[in-house]
Amino acid sequence: MPQVKAYAAQSPDSGVAPFPIERRAPRPDDVLIEIEYCGVCHSDLHTAYNDWGITTYPIVPGHEIVGTVKAVGDAVTGFKPGDRVGVGCLVDSCRECGSCEHGLEQYCEQGWVGTYNGVDRHDGTPTYGGYSEQIVVSDRFVLRMPESLDLAAAAPLLCAGITTWSPLKHFGVGKGHRVGVVGMGGLGHMGVKFARALGAEVTVFTRSAAKVEEAKKQGAHHVIVSTDAAQMEAAAASFDFILDTVPVPHDLNPYVNVLKRDGTLIIVGLLGPVEPALHTFPVVLGRRRIAGSLIGGLPETQEMLDFCGEHGITCDIEMLDIKNINAAYERMQRSDVRYRFVIDMATLKD
Amino acid sequence: MPQVKAYAAQSPDSGVAPFPIERRAPRPDDVLIEIEYCGVCHSDLHTAYNDWGITTYPIVPGHEIVGTVKAVGDAVTGFKPGDRVGVGCLVDSCRECGSCEHGLEQYCEQGWVGTYNGVDRHDGTPTYGGYSEQIVVSDRFVLRMPESLDLAAAAPLLCAGITTWSPLKHFGVGKGHRVGVVGMGGLGHMGVKFARALGAEVTVFTRSAAKVEEAKKQGAHHVIVSTDAAQMEAAAASFDFILDTVPVPHDLNPYVNVLKRDGTLIIVGLLGPVEPALHTFPVVLGRRRIAGSLIGGLPETQEMLDFCGEHGITCDIEMLDIKNINAAYERMQRSDVRYRFVIDMATLKD
Repeated sequence: MPQVKAYAAQSPDSGVAPFPIERRAPRPDDVLIEIEYCGVCHSDLHTAYNDWGITTYPIVPGHEIVGTVKAVGDAVTGFKPGDRVGVGCLVDSCRECGSCEHGLEQYCEQGWVGTYNGVDRHDGTPTYGGYSEQIVVSDRFVLRMPESLDLAAAAPLLCAGITTWSPLKHFGVGKGHRVGVVGMGGLGHMGVKFARALGAEVTVFTRSAAKVEEAKKQGAHHVIVSTDAAQMEAAAASFDFILDTVPVPHDLNPYVNVLKRDGTLIIVGLLGPVEPALHTFPVVLGRRRIAGSLIGGLPETQEMLDFCGEHGITCDIEMLDIKNINAAYERMQRSDVRYRFVIDMATLKD
Repeated sequence: MPQVKAYAAQSPDSGVAPFPIERRAPRPDDVLIEIEYCGVCHSDLHTAYNDWGITTYPIVPGHEIVGTVKAVGDAVTGFKPGDRVGVGCLVDSCRECGSCEHGLEQYCEQGWVGTYNGVDRHDGTPTYGGYSEQIVVSDRFVLRMPESLDLAAAAPLLCAGITTWSPLKHFGVGKGHRVGVVGMGGLGHMGVKFARALGAEVTVFTRSAAKVEEAKKQGAHHVIVSTDAAQMEAAAASFDFILDTVPVPHDLNPYVNVLKRDGTLIIVGLLGPVEPALHTFPVVLGRRRIAGSLIGGLPETQEMLDFCGEHGITCDIEMLDIKNINAAYERMQRSDVRYRFVIDMATLKD
């Protein structure tokens, strides 16, 4: 098995550092990808630091992977050497359950295999992510990257992009809808771009009046400063959807209040208890809904990439030398990045 | 203005006692109804006791009203003296907003007028409910009661019935769905009957193994004892809908866990903070939804009554002499009624 250069964390406080790994020889359905860029998701640092208590070390993070096909297995017909491709958060699933049959592999009833911190379904080896020179992935979990997009800026579409695209499409966001986006990070700025491109009237909710211009630059038609009670009151019962991308505990009730009857608050960032408590009064009195959504399945990820190709949508990124990854994690924890770090994998070869 | 006999609460601790009230002379669109029976809803006692802090005294409770038309205004064409009719929780709304235009008067954007503890939109007088000999209601808010139904047992359809019917229909419950009903009180037992009649496979969740037989008698195909961890674990990810009728604080998380992907937990009982906290992890990981629903609009209430007429569905009731209303409230607070008290209004005339 060929060894390739990679970066891994060895323990919660080791930081991420060079660590050679082996990649399997391609199976019949495998695609061997030379990685050119890899986006840096908050999940990367949460997993590196074992914030969720589920990390198996060593861990090679990275699930916003783009690059070029180098070789394919005998049974692969959809990809050939030289193709521009991507890999997101999933590299396998049971492929048999109702969710997999519907192309919703992220809800696989037997549990999907993560691009990192997962276990291969065939040989039981750990999965290693995109902070590496190469990756080998079954063709079902490989995406075609539109030629029209800058490859580095398209990398974060594979997690931040699909995480916001999937619920907007699933819940039917489109022309005539008023959509609010809460949180203007990697996910939020993509939510704004997508909701606008889908024809909705988009409002960003921000705690800081200083971010109003930036939100409009990203495509927001309107901005509401959520700490301004008068602005929030004026927005009562006026939104069809709120896309809440904030990953830390926060009060959901003000966002329930701004929903119309039958409006939906979609949670894609928060994973934990809802504190302060959700009040059911406005939920019941307006037949409102609180829903969640997790990344996206393979068909909808390809659909999203194709849409981005047609509409020229990419992420706003800051290019990163992989040798600076630990400093980048620290900056991410201070929300000091607009809006996504993307590792230039050429820096791994130095 | 004619005086009629009624029962009213004068203060939070007065209890409910005889108190004559005036009913307006019918306006052109009004229907004058001789009340024969009135169901007793938990909202009645919460309002009489001012539990929600919104009661204006004196208060005449009662919004599950059935009786016979005695007279109609000049403009009324849909009703005539002698008709069997009903009145539920609403007696007016703005009739102009988007919700009213869609027959969803319970979500009126200007606020609907309650059958009691409301204020008439025309003359500003307080609305008085069904614990009285007669009521005068605008024809839009009067329902036709099917001849085939026992009138007393049909009275609670006007609140307990429509509160469970409306979400089951709105969220599309039908054949092939697995529906769970939490709470087997006035609302819950109607939820079981409706979900079964709509073709769903119905499971009752109860904390008490002693209620298993009773739940099956009401029509449940299955019963899960919610305090049995093994039964709850076995039910994980198996329900399309959970109808949660429990009006007091309780843990919603076990009921989120038993929902399939894209399943919906419908709250119709709880009005207050969700404590213990709702966890978003299973909401996000299963694209599940938490929704609320409030009573029902006039067209859907008539639809529900007609459905009950065709399917012979009524509530299980215990007939009550109005002179025992305060004792009945005490029994309701101990959940000591199967499943609804209905006042025989003949006892008001004694």
